[in-house]
Amino acid sequence: MQMSSREFNKDKENDFSSWYNTIIYAADLADIRYNVQGFVVHKPWSMKVFKKLYKLFETELEKYGHEPVSFPTVIPEDNFEVEKEHAEGFTPEVYWITKQGEHDMARRLALRPTSETAFYQMYNLWVKSHSDLPIKYYQSCTVFRNESETNPFMRGCEFMWIETHNVFANEKEARAQVEEDKKILEKCAEVMCLPFYFFKRPQWDKFAGAVETYATDIMLPDGKTLQFATTHYLGANFTKAFNVKYNDENGKEHSPHSTCFGPGIWRMMAALIATHGDNKGLVFPFALAPLQTIIIPIPKTGEEKNIEKYCMEIKEELEANGVECKVDDSTKTPGYKYNFWELKGVPLRIEIGAREAKEKTATIVRRDNRDKTTCKFSEMAGNVKETGAKLDKDLLKKAQDDLEDKVKTAKTKEEVGKALDAKCYAKTFICSTEKEGVKCSQELQAFTKGGKVRGELVGEKKVSGKCCVCGKTGAQVYIARQY
Amino acid sequence: MQMSSREFNKDKENDFSSWYNTIIYAADLADIRYNVQGFVVHKPWSMKVFKKLYKLFETELEKYGHEPVSFPTVIPEDNFEVEKEHAEGFTPEVYWITKQGEHDMARRLALRPTSETAFYQMYNLWVKSHSDLPIKYYQSCTVFRNESETNPFMRGCEFMWIETHNVFANEKEARAQVEEDKKILEKCAEVMCLPFYFFKRPQWDKFAGAVETYATDIMLPDGKTLQFATTHYLGANFTKAFNVKYNDENGKEHSPHSTCFGPGIWRMMAALIATHGDNKGLVFPFALAPLQTIIIPIPKTGEEKNIEKYCMEIKEELEANGVECKVDDSTKTPGYKYNFWELKGVPLRIEIGAREAKEKTATIVRRDNRDKTTCKFSEMAGNVKETGAKLDKDLLKKAQDDLEDKVKTAKTKEEVGKALDAKCYAKTFICSTEKEGVKCSQELQAFTKGGKVRGELVGEKKVSGKCCVCGKTGAQVYIARQY
Repeated sequence: MQMSSREFNKDKENDFSSWYNTIIYAADLADIRYNVQGFVVHKPWSMKVFKKLYKLFETELEKYGHEPVSFPTVIPEDNFEVEKEHAEGFTPEVYWITKQGEHDMARRLALRPTSETAFYQMYNLWVKSHSDLPIKYYQSCTVFRNESETNPFMRGCEFMWIETHNVFANEKEARAQVEEDKKILEKCAEVMCLPFYFFKRPQWDKFAGAVETYATDIMLPDGKTLQFATTHYLGANFTKAFNVKYNDENGKEHSPHSTCFGPGIWRMMAALIATHGDNKGLVFPFALAPLQTIIIPIPKTGEEKNIEKYCMEIKEELEANGVECKVDDSTKTPGYKYNFWELKGVPLRIEIGAREAKEKTATIVRRDNRDKTTCKFSEMAGNVKETGAKLDKDLLKKAQDDLEDKVKTAKTKEEVGKALDAKCYAKTFICSTEKEGVKCSQELQAFTKGGKVRGELVGEKKVSGKCCVCGKTGAQVYIARQY
Repeated sequence: MQMSSREFNKDKENDFSSWYNTIIYAADLADIRYNVQGFVVHKPWSMKVFKKLYKLFETELEKYGHEPVSFPTVIPEDNFEVEKEHAEGFTPEVYWITKQGEHDMARRLALRPTSETAFYQMYNLWVKSHSDLPIKYYQSCTVFRNESETNPFMRGCEFMWIETHNVFANEKEARAQVEEDKKILEKCAEVMCLPFYFFKRPQWDKFAGAVETYATDIMLPDGKTLQFATTHYLGANFTKAFNVKYNDENGKEHSPHSTCFGPGIWRMMAALIATHGDNKGLVFPFALAPLQTIIIPIPKTGEEKNIEKYCMEIKEELEANGVECKVDDSTKTPGYKYNFWELKGVPLRIEIGAREAKEKTATIVRRDNRDKTTCKFSEMAGNVKETGAKLDKDLLKKAQDDLEDKVKTAKTKEEVGKALDAKCYAKTFICSTEKEGVKCSQELQAFTKGGKVRGELVGEKKVSGKCCVCGKTGAQVYIARQY
């Protein structure tokens, strides 16, 4: 029930939205026809990538001392009300369970929109002494938000993510965790071949209940940014609200400081699709592809058996070396198969004809640039893995170059608008990233039809300059339209 | 915040319930103090095992051609009503979402108690032609049941499982899937070191909407059985209800036959704990342990540095060979550490004193029987893996022997009762496993205080005999009390 690859004919550069929505259906990644608005069904072709994305992040988190936990999907209404800002921020987005069987429940349960209020009531029980700290726990799960406009992998009423909830003895350790979250993202983003910007969000755009919010944005081809991870320094806001305390070595009581980090696994899929795909379809990095190599026999009369046998030998050889591959032995033509697997984004293709079967060689074709190399059977596994690694490196380089081209310096709100219309970030100044800056930011947003202050770029040298709206001296920030 | 191992002092054989509930808390597997009744928090020590259990089953399912999908957690009420028996079976157990933010919803959404009604509406869209079949999809997720009596990993309001939903062209292929499910269970159970019985349940104890239900039971130490997987042959009940049809090669329309299989990952944890543990605490199989080997330094004045250094060398050597291990370098005494890691169920312990550090040897101690072996550093990785594999083999053998001792032949309902009181299965006859047998089964259940017909043992030669209740000739079945 999926679109033939010949029918897929969309212009990614000039009509990204149509390209994106069509490829999700055409490549059989998800089905949006489930009969609850905003909830999608994930098909095997996306699930295989989701499993790898989860493994990538979980492995990296565990290297840094995070440990897995799993909390209930439901949170009682009372918990929400403990941290006031948080409650106000999330209540409008919550799905409420009010009945068990045919009985009304005494109190409502929320489907978790995020799990701070579930974790902190338990941290209240678990944290007593300095020796109980730090706690660095993560859970891989879905969360629920009542959204009206939805789009697969970008915005949904139920989506996949990881959430870490971390408690530290003091502010210094908690702030170091923000740095560590950035490092984890950098390592994972390299595997995804995705360059990103790590911003400190302005005060008016922070997480409900946080002291500071840091967020990871990626620029999509239509010039809108997609936030795909956030990390929040929560100070002692949540620990105080939930009465989490510990005694230090001298028996003195303290409120610990805490952080949370939310790698948006769902949105990473959107970023992978949007960044690497082309007008032929998807392009998956070799390290994360649902299938790494497709082997396609080129039939020749009288030679079918030999070709088929040799294809199977290659499959066995590659699998023995840890490469995920498959022989497409369907009755379609080779041309049809090329198009089909290109649409699906399989990074490498191996073509086997009568000559290759006889000479024990193979031609390896890259999905991204169609470069071909020929090698002997004995070198094949090594060659496939090297070619895959090279493809990934090139995907990252290309995406990095694209991003560099997409930052334009702007001095006035007119110049900001021009940069955004050119599908770029505007690098400019705003009078303040504290609450006082909100007026200029709103004026800028209205003037540029949606340009928002994404924040100060973490790691970039701090310089100050004149606000592009009011002219007062302020901080250097990046402006972009966003998803 | 966990119990010291010296405080753990429970008699598994004679007071299993107290042993079980204490070990969950003492070994820090889960916390039942979450403030919604019946929902538990899973701590890292159990989550590491859950991740391995999921991987074990997912890998095996994929070997047999199943592919991963992920469906929404919510199912609209209308879907439930499509298959009448199914709706009646599950409606009393359902949690209902009735509000989004502060708005009442037009129709209620169920938190999935199982996902047939979500999958089949999509199968209606996906299945058109014989070439779309078979479909073999699985999802790893939690499901929700409104239960009043709960117990961690045995019965909960939210629990972890895998569900497969499979559609085939005809009855023959669908029935072959039931056989395949049994084979998958056999392979996974061997890794878990758990012997099980695969029963065909009597007609009065089948899944709501199924033609036939097969279920996997394990016998716990208190003589009650725990069902930890079910596989259902659904005939065309669900495909007809959801109007799923396909055209064969001649264009003729058919209703496909379907099956589902639910490995109860949560209950497998309960079975692992209950089967292998002893009065010292947990015993995890090497292949599934949250930590495979603990390295414990035995301090000697003046030799601390050498001992510490050698412990780290062993850790690196074992990790390089794929063994998960840790050095316990805390300030507690070796004796305390032995008890602690025995309570936690780590299968192997390596003791390193001054002599071992000097001679580059090590003593490996098994958790299950405390057998000790000494080996050289160069042989250590191989030795640890062999000892781990041997431990697993012995755990399985012991559990198999236990199970064989727990089957007693019974001719009368009095004999059945005696067998159950001796914490055993009663192997006897019932006049019928069709609907007509329900009367005798109820009488037997009342007489034996909870003895239920678990069904006919699949694979055992069919013999007939006199019903232990009414004396009419009927089928050989197993009776047990159950969780």
